[in-house]
Amino acid sequence: MSVENVVYIGSKPLMNYCLAVLTSLKDGEGRVALKARGRAISTAVDVAEVTKNRFMENLKVETVEIGTEELESDGRMRNVSTITIVLKK
Amino acid sequence: MSVENVVYIGSKPLMNYCLAVLTSLKDGEGRVALKARGRAISTAVDVAEVTKNRFMENLKVETVEIGTEELESDGRMRNVSTITIVLKK
Repeated sequence: MSVENVVYIGSKPLMNYCLAVLTSLKDGEGRVALKARGRAISTAVDVAEVTKNRFMENLKVETVEIGTEELESDGRMRNVSTITIVLKK
Repeated sequence: MSVENVVYIGSKPLMNYCLAVLTSLKDGEGRVALKARGRAISTAVDVAEVTKNRFMENLKVETVEIGTEELESDGRMRNVSTITIVLKK
């Protein structure tokens, strides 16, 4: 399944990402993917839950997938966990 | 669906939880749920991925669910995000 609209979650304030999700859903095809790695995984879950509970009652969590990516840091490869949460209007 | 074996993820070292998962799978019915709240959500994903990739190749992520719980802290109610990852041998 491919989702065109992707919001990458980092270390900005939660509400920035909630706004990005709402904007993306308004303009797009009614579906948005949140993607995060490492420590930002908790934030991605917060964004999904806050958007759903506070801003858009009819939003559904369609799928949640977890995985692992290899990243290079300081010249060494290390593994980092990832999450992809697909939200659907 | 109810899973009898639950490993609650907190702030201990990752390998403690991986060991708990492996022990639980060895003794039990071949299925274990990881549960975490707030910042520990990222750790829960790490535990699932590390156990799967490093210790038990035939382990599958059966379901991933996210949610919200109300917690009392300092006499106030606040919402905290949760994750439940079910692993199956």
